[in-house]
Amino acid sequence: MTEKIGNEMYDLMKRLYPICRSITGDGVRQTLKIIKKLIPIEIKEVPTGKKVFDWTIPKEWNIKDAYIKDLKGKKIVDFKKSNLHVLNYSKPINKKMNLIELKKHLFTLPEHPDWIPYLTSYYKENWGFCITQKQFEKLKEDTYEVFIDSELKDGHLTYGEYLIKGKSKDEVLISTYLCHPSLCNDNLSGVVLTTFLAKYLKNKKLNFSYRFLFIPETIGAITWLNINEKNLSKIKHGLVVTCVGDSGNLTYKKTRRGNAEIDKIVEKILFESENQFTICDFFPSGSDERQYCSAGFNLPVGSLMRTPYGRFPEYHTSADDLKFVKPKYLADTYEKYIEIFNILENNGTYLNQNPKCEPQLGKRGLYRMIGAQKTQEKNDAFVSELAMLWVLNMSDGKNSLLDIAIKSNLSFKEIKIAADALLKNKLLR
Amino acid sequence: MTEKIGNEMYDLMKRLYPICRSITGDGVRQTLKIIKKLIPIEIKEVPTGKKVFDWTIPKEWNIKDAYIKDLKGKKIVDFKKSNLHVLNYSKPINKKMNLIELKKHLFTLPEHPDWIPYLTSYYKENWGFCITQKQFEKLKEDTYEVFIDSELKDGHLTYGEYLIKGKSKDEVLISTYLCHPSLCNDNLSGVVLTTFLAKYLKNKKLNFSYRFLFIPETIGAITWLNINEKNLSKIKHGLVVTCVGDSGNLTYKKTRRGNAEIDKIVEKILFESENQFTICDFFPSGSDERQYCSAGFNLPVGSLMRTPYGRFPEYHTSADDLKFVKPKYLADTYEKYIEIFNILENNGTYLNQNPKCEPQLGKRGLYRMIGAQKTQEKNDAFVSELAMLWVLNMSDGKNSLLDIAIKSNLSFKEIKIAADALLKNKLLR
Amino acid sequence: MTEKIGNEMYDLMKRLYPICRSITGDGVRQTLKIIKKLIPIEIKEVPTGKKVFDWTIPKEWNIKDAYIKDLKGKKIVDFKKSNLHVLNYSKPINKKMNLIELKKHLFTLPEHPDWIPYLTSYYKENWGFCITQKQFEKLKEDTYEVFIDSELKDGHLTYGEYLIKGKSKDEVLISTYLCHPSLCNDNLSGVVLTTFLAKYLKNKKLNFSYRFLFIPETIGAITWLNINEKNLSKIKHGLVVTCVGDSGNLTYKKTRRGNAEIDKIVEKILFESENQFTICDFFPSGSDERQYCSAGFNLPVGSLMRTPYGRFPEYHTSADDLKFVKPKYLADTYEKYIEIFNILENNGTYLNQNPKCEPQLGKRGLYRMIGAQKTQEKNDAFVSELAMLWVLNMSDGKNSLLDIAIKSNLSFKEIKIAADALLKNKLLR
Repeated sequence: MTEKIGNEMYDLMKRLYPICRSITGDGVRQTLKIIKKLIPIEIKEVPTGKKVFDWTIPKEWNIKDAYIKDLKGKKIVDFKKSNLHVLNYSKPINKKMNLIELKKHLFTLPEHPDWIPYLTSYYKENWGFCITQKQFEKLKEDTYEVFIDSELKDGHLTYGEYLIKGKSKDEVLISTYLCHPSLCNDNLSGVVLTTFLAKYLKNKKLNFSYRFLFIPETIGAITWLNINEKNLSKIKHGLVVTCVGDSGNLTYKKTRRGNAEIDKIVEKILFESENQFTICDFFPSGSDERQYCSAGFNLPVGSLMRTPYGRFPEYHTSADDLKFVKPKYLADTYEKYIEIFNILENNGTYLNQNPKCEPQLGKRGLYRMIGAQKTQEKNDAFVSELAMLWVLNMSDGKNSLLDIAIKSNLSFKEIKIAADALLKNKLLR
Repeated sequence: MTEKIGNEMYDLMKRLYPICRSITGDGVRQTLKIIKKLIPIEIKEVPTGKKVFDWTIPKEWNIKDAYIKDLKGKKIVDFKKSNLHVLNYSKPINKKMNLIELKKHLFTLPEHPDWIPYLTSYYKENWGFCITQKQFEKLKEDTYEVFIDSELKDGHLTYGEYLIKGKSKDEVLISTYLCHPSLCNDNLSGVVLTTFLAKYLKNKKLNFSYRFLFIPETIGAITWLNINEKNLSKIKHGLVVTCVGDSGNLTYKKTRRGNAEIDKIVEKILFESENQFTICDFFPSGSDERQYCSAGFNLPVGSLMRTPYGRFPEYHTSADDLKFVKPKYLADTYEKYIEIFNILENNGTYLNQNPKCEPQLGKRGLYRMIGAQKTQEKNDAFVSELAMLWVLNMSDGKNSLLDIAIKSNLSFKEIKIAADALLKNKLLR
Repeated sequence: MTEKIGNEMYDLMKRLYPICRSITGDGVRQTLKIIKKLIPIEIKEVPTGKKVFDWTIPKEWNIKDAYIKDLKGKKIVDFKKSNLHVLNYSKPINKKMNLIELKKHLFTLPEHPDWIPYLTSYYKENWGFCITQKQFEKLKEDTYEVFIDSELKDGHLTYGEYLIKGKSKDEVLISTYLCHPSLCNDNLSGVVLTTFLAKYLKNKKLNFSYRFLFIPETIGAITWLNINEKNLSKIKHGLVVTCVGDSGNLTYKKTRRGNAEIDKIVEKILFESENQFTICDFFPSGSDERQYCSAGFNLPVGSLMRTPYGRFPEYHTSADDLKFVKPKYLADTYEKYIEIFNILENNGTYLNQNPKCEPQLGKRGLYRMIGAQKTQEKNDAFVSELAMLWVLNMSDGKNSLLDIAIKSNLSFKEIKIAADALLKNKLLR
């Protein structure tokens, strides 16, 4: 089941991989159009020049082609081979120059001589090429033809948004960024996972409303927060989805609050899983949780990743490619997100209706018939007695089912089944 | 001294061992009568049918004999050899049946082929025999005579209660259960230890009042709580006494509150002791602390055991016998309970009467005469200077002597002697 | 730089070493006069008989000479060779006596046969000699001439005080004791370190006012607290300086409060340092923090030492000499105290002026120009982006720069530089 979804996510990633995205422009639009075939996102456009808090929507950037030719007319660097070759947001150029001048605009990664670095210059007009160290070392004194067929003009910042309405207006925010060009783990993995999470929830009966954002990193989050400032109090829980497809263990970066319900949920799920994991406190570098958790908003938004940005050598290089991400890791992360939704949807705080001593579970068919046995026999209709005792003992109005699951060290599922049995028997309200 | 008491407790256990007890009936009465020779307990009777919270006092059960005979008239299972052979609370039966029918009412422990399991059926009318796996495997196709000479009729639930009055009406509750038949650690050990603790306190001048309960487990605690609901606020500290005679280390199960004074006392004593020990948080399975600590009461009742119920293989089997419990372990647990009483009786919160700087202890004869020595010489009249400094420094009205002993890592005794010396010198009030 | 200061401190210690000090008398005056050549301390005198809380200023003690002669007139113990030879505060005596009588007044250290112990008898009139175990063992039956040319008379308790005024009337208290005779680590090390700390701050522009005390231990602190009781609320932070010149690792004894700002500062500095260190909770034995942190005052005064009093074998013996303390250890402790002052002076709590999302640091020249790079290049004008993000994120009015440095695990210096850059750009207030 999740294997199938893992493959579907990977296939979507393969389709999105060649597109040259940036924080604005047609690459983003094209990406959103493909996603829209799977989930009914709204595509929104915010014009260049609009003020969003301390920032301004920049000019829209588009690019058709770029290359460096040597005197013989041979393309020695070619945008068509990798869109990482162009410094993202490069202004147009068409000029001949010598090697000394050219080198001021070349970027390499000496420690990985076969990899192309990914670099940007959104807010300072510049142009440049990112090449491998090996390409760089082959360059000789020569006259080079440098050509970038790009355009920087008033236009729009584009993003996608999709709200699945549940019974409550309280929202769960799932935010991912789609501004990176041909880079897989960072962050096509986030884009495809978010898409399939929305697809999963689309036709479910839900308690919470779920808001999915596909935005350019930083400026997109700032823009969305600016536009939606009045509605932010609806956001009760949130996660930023990034770097979710590599082979590393799961990493949870907590909300700035550090003890939000989403923190407890993700921690519980990670503790219940069989694999190693990492939980770290909030820190103010990273992805869009930087904006959601800025001092003035302090929204309960965490981030569940695999290997975090900056912690894998392939990060922001051409080596973060289709081989670096695997369907099974996408599927594993997907499962964990689904478990999170499951707890979010099923958590609740109940009141023991018979708080003085235990109720007699036996007369309600909820307790073993032969007493003094050492352990409860598990059968098909298994409702854990121990879980019921925990729920009864802790349901004093102060503890949610999640709190009880954490305290008892039982699974949320076991606690939920017990609570349902007690609810059915009116022992809980 | 405690060796002698260990032997006395063990001797009492030997007397109580053969009696067939249950949650009601003459076994309980007989047990209480024997205890009454040592301490003046009141024996109370609560009639069948009385509602106690969600429960009802069941019919009283008594049994005279029971066996299974084969066609040749040979008793192959005999209640007289072990009262565990009968499913506790079995209804009367006198019937011939074939092996297939009989097997529906036989219970064994395949993993321990020589042991008889202990099983009950209090609240669902049933009958059965508990036998060893070896007995079970010898059974052949045959016609068996099944005979249980028991009686289930309106009667009473019986329990014992003993209040030792101290200066204060505030109470310490010591609760043990006496409903198990021939099983030693669970819980004749608790019954005899509780008896001797009451005997120890009987003629002492006490600050607290001490209430001792000898009740059937679960239904007895529920009954007592129901009858005494209005007086529960008097209970300031409590312990459930169970499984206190085996060779395992001491285990303390905290109160549901988790930070009650009794929790701090027992933890301090365990930390001071030389032996390994375990401290665990409250959990809602177990013994009568389940009822005392139910959400609606949340009394400060913990439980100091040795190996907890369910954690030793002999638990609820015929192997929990007179060999499994030893006088020296009973004596060791006894000592710890006496230490608990000692702290309960002597703890207090005082106020430093000279809180600005240290008082001059030397002029009161409380400080060494030759200054600058590295350590205090210990003599007969030794009052620890360090302990006095701790008491003075922390006696700001917020810290009890126990708190000071915990914080200073000094023994409660040392702190108490220091406080007494300071009180005598009016430096404390 | 600090090497030079280490040597200067050591030189001062050498000058002070031979003086016979006590809790009163000319030794203290002489010591203060030498210090006064380096920093403008006020020398204060409090008369014998004055009541200070539970204590009374004792008679002033002075001593000129002391010896024990054998019948042949040979000085076998001579105050002029070591002032430790006389039980500090010995009354005058001039008498012949036999060995039995003499021995009642002799003190030795059997476990260190070459060392002279340091002992006192301030509050009980007595006389005595402290000698090595080897000296003691050579004594034969003889008639001895015992001579102590001391004087106990109404006079004064003398101490030194120096206040460096800063912008604020809030004070930092730096307290050391100068009552010990020829003992180096305990506490000439504290005296010389405190002197040079005051010298360092003397001409600085300061936010806090700094009060330096050179007092006799215990009675001096009690006296000062008594005289200044009305002004104690000014003391916002404080440290007792003792045992700061030996080769041991740094040890910080926390304030009684346990979470004062000074506790956080010293802990941060120790965690940042490369060396091992010890942090321990407050305990009520020790030095003058006993008085400052008595229940009635509870001032935020900790103590940063090297090996604490009583924890080195040389403590309170003639082996705590000029060889036991080394310039480099004095210098190392000095550095740490300066770092403490640096944080005290530079700590502050600011308010992010742009709390909704991050401000655009790039347009202010505070962010790297090429985006998506893995790490920030460090150049001369290096202001850590990460530190700026931490300061912005946490400057919600609840966190000081110190709190941010602790939470972020960045150095206080890095955080301070970032905060200054943000302040300059009006992003912080």
